[in-house]
Amino acid sequence: MTDLTHTPDWVKNAIFYQIFPDRFAKSKNVEKPEHLEPWSLPVTQHGFKGGDLLGVCEHLDYLQDLGVTALYFNPIFASAANHRYHTFDYYQVDPILGGNTAYFTLLEEVHRRGMYLILDGVFNHASRGFFQFHHILENGEKSPYRDWFTVYGYPLNAYHDKPNYSAWWNMPALPQFNTDNPRVREFLFGIARYWIEQGADGWRLDVPFEIKDPEFWRKFRVITKEANPDAYLVGEIPSEAQEWLQGDMFDAVMNYQFTAACVGFFGKGSRDDGLISGMMGLPEIPELDASDFAQRTRQLLEIYPRQNALAQLNLLDSHDMPRFLSMVRGKKDAFRLASLFQMTYPGAPCIYYGDEIGLMGGRDPDCRAPFPWDEAVWDHDLHNAIRTYTHLRLKHPVLRAGEFEPVFAQEACLAYLRHLDGEQLFVLLNTGHSTWDFNVPVEKWFANAVEFEDLLGGEGAVIEEGH
Amino acid sequence: MTDLTHTPDWVKNAIFYQIFPDRFAKSKNVEKPEHLEPWSLPVTQHGFKGGDLLGVCEHLDYLQDLGVTALYFNPIFASAANHRYHTFDYYQVDPILGGNTAYFTLLEEVHRRGMYLILDGVFNHASRGFFQFHHILENGEKSPYRDWFTVYGYPLNAYHDKPNYSAWWNMPALPQFNTDNPRVREFLFGIARYWIEQGADGWRLDVPFEIKDPEFWRKFRVITKEANPDAYLVGEIPSEAQEWLQGDMFDAVMNYQFTAACVGFFGKGSRDDGLISGMMGLPEIPELDASDFAQRTRQLLEIYPRQNALAQLNLLDSHDMPRFLSMVRGKKDAFRLASLFQMTYPGAPCIYYGDEIGLMGGRDPDCRAPFPWDEAVWDHDLHNAIRTYTHLRLKHPVLRAGEFEPVFAQEACLAYLRHLDGEQLFVLLNTGHSTWDFNVPVEKWFANAVEFEDLLGGEGAVIEEGH
Repeated sequence: MTDLTHTPDWVKNAIFYQIFPDRFAKSKNVEKPEHLEPWSLPVTQHGFKGGDLLGVCEHLDYLQDLGVTALYFNPIFASAANHRYHTFDYYQVDPILGGNTAYFTLLEEVHRRGMYLILDGVFNHASRGFFQFHHILENGEKSPYRDWFTVYGYPLNAYHDKPNYSAWWNMPALPQFNTDNPRVREFLFGIARYWIEQGADGWRLDVPFEIKDPEFWRKFRVITKEANPDAYLVGEIPSEAQEWLQGDMFDAVMNYQFTAACVGFFGKGSRDDGLISGMMGLPEIPELDASDFAQRTRQLLEIYPRQNALAQLNLLDSHDMPRFLSMVRGKKDAFRLASLFQMTYPGAPCIYYGDEIGLMGGRDPDCRAPFPWDEAVWDHDLHNAIRTYTHLRLKHPVLRAGEFEPVFAQEACLAYLRHLDGEQLFVLLNTGHSTWDFNVPVEKWFANAVEFEDLLGGEGAVIEEGH
Repeated sequence: MTDLTHTPDWVKNAIFYQIFPDRFAKSKNVEKPEHLEPWSLPVTQHGFKGGDLLGVCEHLDYLQDLGVTALYFNPIFASAANHRYHTFDYYQVDPILGGNTAYFTLLEEVHRRGMYLILDGVFNHASRGFFQFHHILENGEKSPYRDWFTVYGYPLNAYHDKPNYSAWWNMPALPQFNTDNPRVREFLFGIARYWIEQGADGWRLDVPFEIKDPEFWRKFRVITKEANPDAYLVGEIPSEAQEWLQGDMFDAVMNYQFTAACVGFFGKGSRDDGLISGMMGLPEIPELDASDFAQRTRQLLEIYPRQNALAQLNLLDSHDMPRFLSMVRGKKDAFRLASLFQMTYPGAPCIYYGDEIGLMGGRDPDCRAPFPWDEAVWDHDLHNAIRTYTHLRLKHPVLRAGEFEPVFAQEACLAYLRHLDGEQLFVLLNTGHSTWDFNVPVEKWFANAVEFEDLLGGEGAVIEEGH
């Protein structure tokens, strides 16, 4: 029998790349409607750029070169929203993305390359166009689906006045499923099972805390893990999430607590508080010095079972917040060091598309700009740095599965050791403006005269007097 | 190369049965939403009874016993209307009907029995839930699909005020496709092709005259006939339809002109003018005596090429008008004789579900009552009569492909000959209340002393003195 508490080993070795499908890449081989916004013009709230899944397929070489081994997609099912969180049909990939055909082409190619792919599961709410909701909109209380949603009056006010039905954040466009209805549960579980059976490697679960019944998510886990014990389940829980990671619900969460710590430490001195404030609904993000940061990042590992900590989705930003580089007012070094930390910390790093070439963007929708494929506008130094870090991680198992041991933390300077089965790897970070002649106590780990190789190409070092 | 003008031979030999899917039969093997209306209670405008396609499958024995060889379905694609003319998704059979799975199960069984199945194609308009329309509803002019419909202003007034977009009969629930858009054409042709390739035996085309471009329908014919040269294309054209039946568009039309003639003749003396008035938007239906009727029914054959006349869909009523039996105020003999005429006249007869057991019903929605499967409420005499007539038709090729020759027509009495390759069959109808000692001149056809067998079990007759 499968151990249902097990978290997938592939995740512990993965480097994720988050793709907002309308904005990553466009293929000539997907037929599109006519009135798309030009790729290079600024994004708008409701406009479509026309990115698609064959476009992703055509850039897998780029992603592999970047060190990416797994893709996390924002929603891809048919939807009338450019972000596709307003699901119209859970069984059809959006036609503008190339439909199910493009999806399965991509999936096959991803798997052929030994890569993985997870999907965004939006199960708390649907859209006004979702069949069963539309059914009530058209037929009122005569609709046999009337108990799929929570309706307070007929006819539905879906397009004028305030919604007279339960809607997420009372937004009429997002009618909330009545997940107490067993038929609705079966429907949602059916979707969960179907796409895993069809080969997806996991689900990122949108606002799971809104479905206020742990049994829902326990059953969800059983169903997906039965379909594939290696399916990855990662919840969008911005807060600490101990109760979600006990083995019976999710493997991991989107680690926005990690994000907040990175903003707090690496952003010190350059942060844009206006952009940072309200990030993911979290309380104010405090500034952290190296010592606070070391403590917090260590704590974020200790509060979870080890196998869950190693499977966390560690991100510096996402489609739901300003890009990291914008939050630090474009300070490349801050972002670069944060990325180095991300790539040398336990848990699966996740790069938000375009961050690696220096794409900037404030709050939604600005953080969802199209990927500029004109390499002339890329920050190649940054790109090379990130690629170096990812490949370090891929090359050294100690960076993925090793212990994380801060050994020195003072003001802007942080040193930590990763160690596993006799392999040791030291990371030294200086977020300040002045040079750090590091003098770190390591007698616990290394004998005198042990020589260090600088994996980033510097001079190396030799242990002297335990330092 | 295929002769694209050819009409399918199977149709010329078929007896159709029209099924309104929500109302014919319910299978325990299709999962349904909870709040269906009880089968036996009166129908309502928006209620769902929950008929399904496996229910049809489970009654194919019944239909074959009735002599039925082909099924014509009112729309089956996903729709929030109980009649399903408001198409939501042209590629999905409605979940309440059992979805695509039930459809393909049914189709396979229909074909296994040597029967045929045609679908209702609604290509002039969609629904407010149709993806591309919903897309405009949600995104306004930012939707890349904005030219799939004809929009006069944003945002769309789809659920309040008057529609500010082109809608069929200005009904907001029925947004009209912009069929001038080549992408829309390709989409619609794609549907037409897909379902034929998947095995459907033809399309009944809803309000085709609303797409005011003959090229659309010419291309439509080419596409479906390329997919299957034997696909049947029958348009809903209530008027005379010479221009549609020249070989480049449809094989046939729903022969409401035949219906009108039958109401005019067989309904004489019992007709309910209140119910009849406005039938299918036709001008007033005149009363006809036998001579008028003979002339009209002959004319209805002569105005079309012979191969189209033989492929006409001859119906006595449909889901769009009161049932024949109600139009003649329940006079069973009038309906029975009309059915006998229908079964002995050139063109494919089509029985509207339930007519054969005496189901009554006025205008929509009353004409769409659930089929009562409790045989205690059936009119068994009527059922037996209809079954006798259908089997006569199936047994005698002359009734299908033979010439139609009225030989006597006076007041309530009509006699006509069907003849083909030396087989002759005489039909004598008396719609009046008194006995008709028929004395019909037949010297043109028969020698004296030729003996007639009464196929309906009576005494037979012998020709004397050319009569």
